[in-house]
Amino acid sequence: MVAVTGLYDRAASRWRELQADICAALEAVDGRARFSSERWERPGGGGGVSRVLEDGEVFEKAGVNWSDVEGELPEDFAAQLPGSGRRFRATGVSLVLHPRSPMAPTTHANFRFLEKGDAAWFGGGADLTPYYVWREDAEHFHRTLAAACDAHAPVGDYPRFKRWCDEYFFLKHRGETRGVGGIFFDYVGRAPGLAKATDADLEAAFAMASACGAAFVPAYVPIVERRRAEPYGDVERRWQLVRRGRYVEFNLVDDRGTTFGLKTGGRIESILMSLPPLVRWDHDVQPPGPRERELVDILRAPVDWLGPSTRPR
Amino acid sequence: MVAVTGLYDRAASRWRELQADICAALEAVDGRARFSSERWERPGGGGGVSRVLEDGEVFEKAGVNWSDVEGELPEDFAAQLPGSGRRFRATGVSLVLHPRSPMAPTTHANFRFLEKGDAAWFGGGADLTPYYVWREDAEHFHRTLAAACDAHAPVGDYPRFKRWCDEYFFLKHRGETRGVGGIFFDYVGRAPGLAKATDADLEAAFAMASACGAAFVPAYVPIVERRRAEPYGDVERRWQLVRRGRYVEFNLVDDRGTTFGLKTGGRIESILMSLPPLVRWDHDVQPPGPRERELVDILRAPVDWLGPSTRPR
Repeated sequence: MVAVTGLYDRAASRWRELQADICAALEAVDGRARFSSERWERPGGGGGVSRVLEDGEVFEKAGVNWSDVEGELPEDFAAQLPGSGRRFRATGVSLVLHPRSPMAPTTHANFRFLEKGDAAWFGGGADLTPYYVWREDAEHFHRTLAAACDAHAPVGDYPRFKRWCDEYFFLKHRGETRGVGGIFFDYVGRAPGLAKATDADLEAAFAMASACGAAFVPAYVPIVERRRAEPYGDVERRWQLVRRGRYVEFNLVDDRGTTFGLKTGGRIESILMSLPPLVRWDHDVQPPGPRERELVDILRAPVDWLGPSTRPR
Repeated sequence: MVAVTGLYDRAASRWRELQADICAALEAVDGRARFSSERWERPGGGGGVSRVLEDGEVFEKAGVNWSDVEGELPEDFAAQLPGSGRRFRATGVSLVLHPRSPMAPTTHANFRFLEKGDAAWFGGGADLTPYYVWREDAEHFHRTLAAACDAHAPVGDYPRFKRWCDEYFFLKHRGETRGVGGIFFDYVGRAPGLAKATDADLEAAFAMASACGAAFVPAYVPIVERRRAEPYGDVERRWQLVRRGRYVEFNLVDDRGTTFGLKTGGRIESILMSLPPLVRWDHDVQPPGPRERELVDILRAPVDWLGPSTRPR
């Protein structure tokens, strides 16, 4: 398909390596539970390795999935993507971490490479979903990811990716972002038309996506280390379970990846690994106090965590 | 809009009366908790009354919603419905009950009347979602609803409505029905073209829908009364919470009513009243024993609870 020799295989290897590195770092944080590892085949072609940690000391549920799949896209979906025809190959690493403590944020990251006909591109990102906001945590997360982007400018473009993240992880029916954001990018490699991406464009995109992937552990782990021992009680736990409901609503109603996977015969248990372990839906919940109100206010008006100078021009 | 004098108002009153009757019957069952009552207005026109019971002795969460709304449908949705133009009026009663005990089934019912341009029709149904199956319960539920349909034949057509229910409440991505079924019908009043429904057709449809509504309490209440005191432990409670996850998946991914409401600015808290109070998503759960396996087997191959003679011809 694409011209750059071996790029697909190098990307697939790099995501596999990231999966291993991230799981090792998270096991070190947890100190108790271990990731299982489960290899699966996709009936249409390819497969993956799902790694799941449940009932840990720090993580109530954590899933880190790697995949390398190929096949034919359904016609209506193929028409929405760049590149000729319906044949595709895709490889990526994708994770969602649900800490037990409501004081530690949930997080998601995904890095992927797709080839379709004459097109090829990178996509991905990482975002943070706290139940209680510490501004220094949100700033640290954004700062670490921004540094990875900046090191690969102009293909890495933090201000644009930050806004893209706020726009993508938005629950329309709630009028809220999913969390305090991070970065999101897609169709990177395209210069100027995706089908005409040069080898250098794709290599630069790979280097950027790879650097963002490497930035995930330093962006997230210090936050969970800082918050794992914060005290909390039933009110905070209940707030976390209610807010996890919003995570489910986003993933099942709005998330393109999830709904596409469910509707086109993806591997259900790997797709739904992202759903929280325990969730509440109470009727018409209001924030019980000022800290919970602060969260909701932030979700309704996304913050420029690194200051106004980082706003997209 | 429609020709039958006062039918819309009579339907709206009947649904309101059903809401009151059903809430009273459920409070009597519960013995402890009471339904709240909350009137709301719809920005586009009309409104409703939401009644919610939480943290009861028998019901962990129960919502019974009545509404009478009017407005303009979005163009793409209007095109999918019978009748001219985009103006509509709709009135209905809708409920979801989540008992605390995994031995008592979750249930849903909905009865509604819609007018759109020159068309008007009734829709509705009731279905049962047990976590543990007692065949006598499923048979009782179906038998009671079938009797209501039969009393209003041919407009009431249990064999057809039973199959329609199995087809509608089906989680494609899981390859399972939501539960052991019941009845589902829509566009009733149409004879032969919806816009040409006669007064007599619509009156017959109203009588049938009203009778099915009246059959809900005798169909469901004896089951919850029989099962409320069944003993259970952590294994059964956990199975219930995991299976409730399927309920969420159906409502957020597959249910036309829910997704339409969420995407077109319906009243979020009334729409999502249907979601269970507490839910688990564990990774790749297998039925822990033969009774849980029996449930999954039934959901994968719907049963003719009233015997093969009731199969649609």
